[in-house]
Amino acid sequence: MTARELYEKIIKKNSFLCIGLDTDFNRIPKILRDSEYPIFEFNKRIIDATIDLAVAYKPNLAFYENLGAAGWMSLEMTVNYIREKHPETFLIADAKRGDMGNTSKMYANAFFRNLDFDAITLSPYMGRDSIQPFLEYRNKWSIILGLTSNEGSGDFQLLQLDDSYLFEYVISRAVEWGTKDNMMFVVGATQADQLKKIRKLVPGHFLLVPGIGTQGGSLEDVFVNGHNDQCGLLVNVSRSVIYADVTNNFEVAARQRAIEYRDQMKSLLQQSGLI
Amino acid sequence: MTARELYEKIIKKNSFLCIGLDTDFNRIPKILRDSEYPIFEFNKRIIDATIDLAVAYKPNLAFYENLGAAGWMSLEMTVNYIREKHPETFLIADAKRGDMGNTSKMYANAFFRNLDFDAITLSPYMGRDSIQPFLEYRNKWSIILGLTSNEGSGDFQLLQLDDSYLFEYVISRAVEWGTKDNMMFVVGATQADQLKKIRKLVPGHFLLVPGIGTQGGSLEDVFVNGHNDQCGLLVNVSRSVIYADVTNNFEVAARQRAIEYRDQMKSLLQQSGLI
Repeated sequence: MTARELYEKIIKKNSFLCIGLDTDFNRIPKILRDSEYPIFEFNKRIIDATIDLAVAYKPNLAFYENLGAAGWMSLEMTVNYIREKHPETFLIADAKRGDMGNTSKMYANAFFRNLDFDAITLSPYMGRDSIQPFLEYRNKWSIILGLTSNEGSGDFQLLQLDDSYLFEYVISRAVEWGTKDNMMFVVGATQADQLKKIRKLVPGHFLLVPGIGTQGGSLEDVFVNGHNDQCGLLVNVSRSVIYADVTNNFEVAARQRAIEYRDQMKSLLQQSGLI
Repeated sequence: MTARELYEKIIKKNSFLCIGLDTDFNRIPKILRDSEYPIFEFNKRIIDATIDLAVAYKPNLAFYENLGAAGWMSLEMTVNYIREKHPETFLIADAKRGDMGNTSKMYANAFFRNLDFDAITLSPYMGRDSIQPFLEYRNKWSIILGLTSNEGSGDFQLLQLDDSYLFEYVISRAVEWGTKDNMMFVVGATQADQLKKIRKLVPGHFLLVPGIGTQGGSLEDVFVNGHNDQCGLLVNVSRSVIYADVTNNFEVAARQRAIEYRDQMKSLLQQSGLI
């Protein structure tokens, strides 16, 4: 998928919502826990309930690995289900990988070939050859950590260099390795004051923005500071959509919450003249 | 396992060798490829052939994830086999994880509770709360990327700050979060000139050193620059041991290669007066 194609999907759905599938066995409705693949069953129902409202879904690998081989099976089933029923969806593996070339090549094969994700989140600490193997896949995306939404982002990412923060240096180097059709950056919604600077640094690139909802970031601030002329944003919400209600009513509640986000996004897209 | 206990194992085996289980289906002997769990079968034989020569084993997660659920099954079987047959072994998950607290907690549960690894490699970019959940497990270790052995280490880790490189700043901050009984640092063997500085920065901590063998680092340089009064080193070798021979003779050849490393290590430990 190119950046242009992703933008077209955003326009079509009036939404730049990404739903994070941080699916925790202990938080899904009791009624699903006895099914053979409870995590997949939950994901399938969340996806079906929100597919017209979200342009992307983002399984968080930790939640699947925590269930071992059965977790991987649920991940595979989730990916295959989306590919079969909703092939137009942008699928992100939230994996935060990054290793030496030889190893990153294996991860790229695992996530882009075997599992057919469109994108993967990557940690930049090991530098260019840890990212390169992912960039070699056509129509696939590397989403590199820039400035994250957690408290620990202050420890290294906000380290003050001579004329910038470390995260700005990281983004300005990494952006040279790819294009706006195969590279995005993660910027936490809790860092809305920095978004303007990042948008200047990478005017044409998409940004993946977590931190709305449970973490407290403001969607409006993110949009105002972070959008570009092709939207340029995927805003992720995980827990506050998928666990909007933990009873048997969960699909209706998740849909309702996603509608609220979509409506807010539609209004922001309208105000900016993009739709 | 405490640092003292790890040191005692090193003295007992006259070896600080860690064998990296980067087990690639396409590189294991043909005779094993038809078995039900070929990756596990290969690992089991390598472990049995080298267990008196190595203090640690380090499965590289990418190679298992590349095989999906079956790969995770092989990983679980490998860990369980070691725990049952050779419980004194130090087991490292080479996973380079690191995510916000909520997610790192899931990874910690996956690798320390479900899989009973002793240690995991972690990427520091997201800061303290991405590491903290791993440090909360008693007798388990966080092995944080300091200065890696790959070419890309130059991109960010060797960024020159006012009075140090970035990797020195990372190590000097991270070391405050743990103790010498629950934290190590990764330092590539190809960076032997920097090892002296790192040893000064963290005099009491163990260092995990990859990059010997195929990558060309010198074991002697690593030892001279990096050891401390409790050895303080785990030196990892992956491909040049496990693929020393790819015919049916692979166990004998892997053992022979591991003996060569052990003999060299024994000699270095003797020269330094540690044994």
